[in-house]
Order: sequence, then structure tokens, then C-alpha cells
Amino acid sequence: MPEYRQDFLTGRMVIVAEERASRPYQFDIEGGSEPICPFCPGNESITPDEILAFRPDGAAPNSSDWTVRTVPNLYPAVVRTAEGDAINTDWQVVRPGFGTHEVIVDTPRHVLSLSEMTESEVDAMFRMYAIRIRSLRSEGRFSSVMIFKNVGQAAGASLPHSHSQLIALPFVPESLRAEQVRAQVYMERTGSPCPWCTMLQGELHAAARIIEETVGFVALCPFASRFPAEVAVYPKGHEPYFEEQSDGDLSECARLVRRTVQRPEKSTPWIKGRLAYNIILHTGPFDPEGVLSYHFRFSILPSLSRAAGFEWGTGLHINPISPENAAARLRLAPH
Amino acid sequence: MPEYRQDFLTGRMVIVAEERASRPYQFDIEGGSEPICPFCPGNESITPDEILAFRPDGAAPNSSDWTVRTVPNLYPAVVRTAEGDAINTDWQVVRPGFGTHEVIVDTPRHVLSLSEMTESEVDAMFRMYAIRIRSLRSEGRFSSVMIFKNVGQAAGASLPHSHSQLIALPFVPESLRAEQVRAQVYMERTGSPCPWCTMLQGELHAAARIIEETVGFVALCPFASRFPAEVAVYPKGHEPYFEEQSDGDLSECARLVRRTVQRPEKSTPWIKGRLAYNIILHTGPFDPEGVLSYHFRFSILPSLSRAAGFEWGTGLHINPISPENAAARLRLAPH
Repeated sequence: MPEYRQDFLTGRMVIVAEERASRPYQFDIEGGSEPICPFCPGNESITPDEILAFRPDGAAPNSSDWTVRTVPNLYPAVVRTAEGDAINTDWQVVRPGFGTHEVIVDTPRHVLSLSEMTESEVDAMFRMYAIRIRSLRSEGRFSSVMIFKNVGQAAGASLPHSHSQLIALPFVPESLRAEQVRAQVYMERTGSPCPWCTMLQGELHAAARIIEETVGFVALCPFASRFPAEVAVYPKGHEPYFEEQSDGDLSECARLVRRTVQRPEKSTPWIKGRLAYNIILHTGPFDPEGVLSYHFRFSILPSLSRAAGFEWGTGLHINPISPENAAARLRLAPH
Repeated sequence: MPEYRQDFLTGRMVIVAEERASRPYQFDIEGGSEPICPFCPGNESITPDEILAFRPDGAAPNSSDWTVRTVPNLYPAVVRTAEGDAINTDWQVVRPGFGTHEVIVDTPRHVLSLSEMTESEVDAMFRMYAIRIRSLRSEGRFSSVMIFKNVGQAAGASLPHSHSQLIALPFVPESLRAEQVRAQVYMERTGSPCPWCTMLQGELHAAARIIEETVGFVALCPFASRFPAEVAVYPKGHEPYFEEQSDGDLSECARLVRRTVQRPEKSTPWIKGRLAYNIILHTGPFDPEGVLSYHFRFSILPSLSRAAGFEWGTGLHINPISPENAAARLRLAPH
């Protein structure tokens, strides 16, 4: 059974989930025949029964006629069946790994990257994200949710067929909590309604780190990027929750994210072979505890460098490409 | 010139250092002749002039007759020449990347891993660590120092010849600061003199995560390990500063760290090919600001898993091997 454990000295929480160790790995299989892809149509019986799929009216659940399909993760980091109280000793804090871990199969086609999906496929994937988040939120048992995509081996993926993962937690994780605390302090200190609005106005005015703007969204390289060619896609307006966007806004955002992934993929001097990358959807916590200010965003993190001893030891990242130079290059890249 | 930049919303500090982007990379060079190793004896002119080397009395600086050699990093993350004030706008905090970044060439022999070094070579390397830290501390311009080794490509190394890196900073970085704050709160709440002493007594009593004990040191898998087979080597006594240890204690610690690296290297079911790993020396901040409690430690982080979207998005790591199972396996491994 997975567990949440807190480090006594740093306060850092970790998930210990030995269930994850038995994940199959389908990159670079040597010799033999092609492995069976659990996410391709016709192989639905390999995955657990689906939670939700988009398919024609009347088609049976778990049949092979679908466009986006959400299933429980067979190798979950957290599970709905983990129950019980936290155990606190003098120096140990541990509690059952309650939560849910879902896999969203983005498309029936066996493609690797978001950029190989069509615009309407990405639209449908984003609608699935929003529906699943709203459903989990309405259960009332979770405090936050994260959706992420790991694309390529160097980004931590174990399966090549394009998929997303969703993890809902019964608490607000460390980095989201830090943002909430800082937002609250900022609002009290300045009287401004929202620090994200302040930052976005500043970025749009400075322009140096902007990659592309649409009517409602902007793609930029964050001022304090941890990674080379790191990108964030934000709504320009004050939008705390991804899952509350209209279908039209979801589509505008989906297409901007798709184009933005294509830019570093096509910036050949950076990439040997295929680009590996992570995409992370940050949306507001379900119970904001009085902090109503948040902006949802997508982070796109190309795997162009590795965290090493200094990063793991200090929490400080060394970024060898300034966000200004990264943005200048990404603006010019095909998309 | 490198810069420290703070993220407005998370508070995270990063170092933007474009100097780092031009580092040579000497793994997997395709075709052509073997690249010249800048760390092998005879090639001293490729590195900047040395800061300190252990060599026979009377031998000239930068000659090829040395056993451990410290030089400035040619591709520094931070530099002594970065001066000037921080610039604070409404949402941007940036200051010059003042600090120092040194390379310690661990041995004249072109070996990759600590485990290929002799015991007396590791003793000398640890003495060099202590001397360099004491020297930087006495300058009075730095607040903290970190020494780390990245071994192997998967651990972020760019050169194969065994070397360590030292970075001294004019502030206390995020994760060390968090430990200081939590230690202070713990001491005030409980009246106990030191949370690390409490934790170590608990670990030694429980025994489940202990790998090996010597008279003065212990190697264990931390209760809330972020990585599979993560190990920490601690002094059993209340020792805040690595650099204040006697030569005898440094040697005992060095040999335990060396043996402890050999254990996962020789645990063949985990490793395909060579083990890549990071070693990090955490020692107390130079100016403890009233918090006198700290324990120095070495962290050994085998590169057996990758941080991916969930880790970068939440700060929470998913560890697929429990520290209890890791310790059980490492105890039995050859060393």
C-alpha cells in the first residue's frame, strides 16, 4: 500500500509506492517482437475498466471505438483504498497513500508527441482533462489535482503511446502551498488583487520573454526559469481554474500549447533526435482556504539538461540558457 | 555574467549562467580520436591556474606531480567578479551571481567512480574538501558551501575523470534554510538540543533502515527517501561541520562513503551497465544565525529513476523502492 512520508528535517513529503516498481518499460526493447501497446484500440482488455471514454452514442464501454479514454493507472502512486489515520512518532510522520491516479489515453493513434496529434484531438484531450477534474472535485475527498504528460524516455516516460496522467491528492502539495502563501502575503502587503495578474502585465509590457499571444492566452519563458527553454502558457485574464473554462477557451489554449511544443521540437540546434519533455497542468486547489487568487497554467519543460548534485542538494537550479535568449529563439522557430 | 533570479510566485531562486552552456561533453564521442582529458596529469595547462594541490614539497604549482588538485571551474555557475546590488521591481528580484565555483580533481588516475579510488586517495580527497571549506569560510564573504560529485552521464556529469565540484554562495539556499527553520521550531517546542540527534537515535534503535555502522558514523536509507536506494552517511555524534573533523574522523567517514557507493554498484539486479550517482556534502551554514544545531551528512543518490512531470510540478517525489527494502538489499551487497 502506498504511503506519504514526511522528512523530519526538511519537511519534504514523498510518496513511497512499491506498486510503481513493476511498470513495464517499452522503449528500446532489444530483439524479439514489438511489445503489445496497452493504449492502442483493440487492446482495451489489458487496461483496467475505463472510467470515461469519448465514443459514439450507444457504443459499449471498453470497446475499441473511442477518441479519448481514461482508465485507472495499473501501477498507481496513490490509491482510493488506502485508508486510516496518520501515524506521528517523535520524528516520523506517515499516512496511507490515499488518492487517485488515472491515465488518459490522448488519442487512439500510436503517436508519441502532442505535436503529432491533430488540433481537434488536442481539443478533445483538453475537454477530457476538464471533465475529469470537475468530477474529482465534486467528490469532495480531494484537495488538489495535477495532470502531467511525460513524453520520451529522457522525460521519464515508460510507454511511447501518447498519454497523460492525473493524480488527485487529499492535501495541497508543497509547491502549490508555497504559491498560495506568497500570494496571500503579496495581496495583504500591496492591496493588489492578484500577483499573477501583476506578473503577466509586467511580462506583456516587457515583451522580452513572450513567445506568442492569442486573444486570451500567452506563451512565455518564465523570468526565473529552472530549465533551458522552459515555457509557461497562461490565460491573460484572471482565471484560477482550468476546469471552469468554456469549450472555446479550452480549444484556444489547447492549440497554443500544441504549437508551443512544436517550437523547441523544430529548433534543431538544441535537439539531438526527438525532443523529450514534460507538460504540467497547474490548476487552483479545490479548497483554496481563503486564498482566492490563482492562475491556472501549463508548464512545458523540455528535457535539455539534467538535475544533478547541486540541484538536489540546494533546491536551486542552474539554467545555462537565459529565458530571454530562449524566447528569442522559440519565437523564430517553426510551429 | 551569471545572475540569481527569484520566481515571484513560488519564491524559488535559480541561477541563470549562460557560461555553463559551452561546457565540453566527453561521453560517447562518436568516431575520431579520444578527447584530451583536462584532469589527467600533463594537461594542467588546459585548466585555469590551480588554487591548491597536494604535491611533494618543492614541486612547482601547476606541474604534473600532484595527488589532489583544485582549480577554478572554467564554466562557472557563479563568479567572484559579479558585484552590485540586487534589483527589485514590483515582481522581479535579480542580483549578480556572486560566489565561487571550484573543481577538485579527486585523483590523477583517469577513473570514473569513487569506488575505483584507493582508500588513501579518498582520505586525501576528503582532506582537500575540509581545507577548501575552511579557507572559504575564513574569507567572510560567503554564507554556505556545497560540495557535490556527479558520476556518470545519467547523473549529469559532462566529464568522465573522477572530480568533485564546490560552490560557495553568499546566502543560505532554500533547502538548508528550511532545515534551519524546522530545527529551530523543534528545539523551541520540545526543549531537545538537536532534531538530528533525535532522528539518529531513532534510526539506530529501529535498525530497519541501517546499512552499516562504524565507531563514529552510520550509513542508512532515510525514512522519507526521495530516490530508490538513496543513502545518507551521518556522524553519530553532534557534529555540525564537516570541515571541523579531525583527519582520523575524515578518514573513517571517507572509507564508509567509499564502501557505501560500492554496495549499489554491486547490486546487479538494479543496474544495467555502470551505476551513475550523485554525492552531496551538506555541512552547516557559515553564519548559523543563532541556529547552532546541524549535522553534516553525505547524501548518495543513485540515478535509478528520473524526476518527471509530477515531481517538477508538485515537489513531491514518488519513490518505487521503500527505504526498508533498499537497506535490506544494500546490507547484503558486496562492499
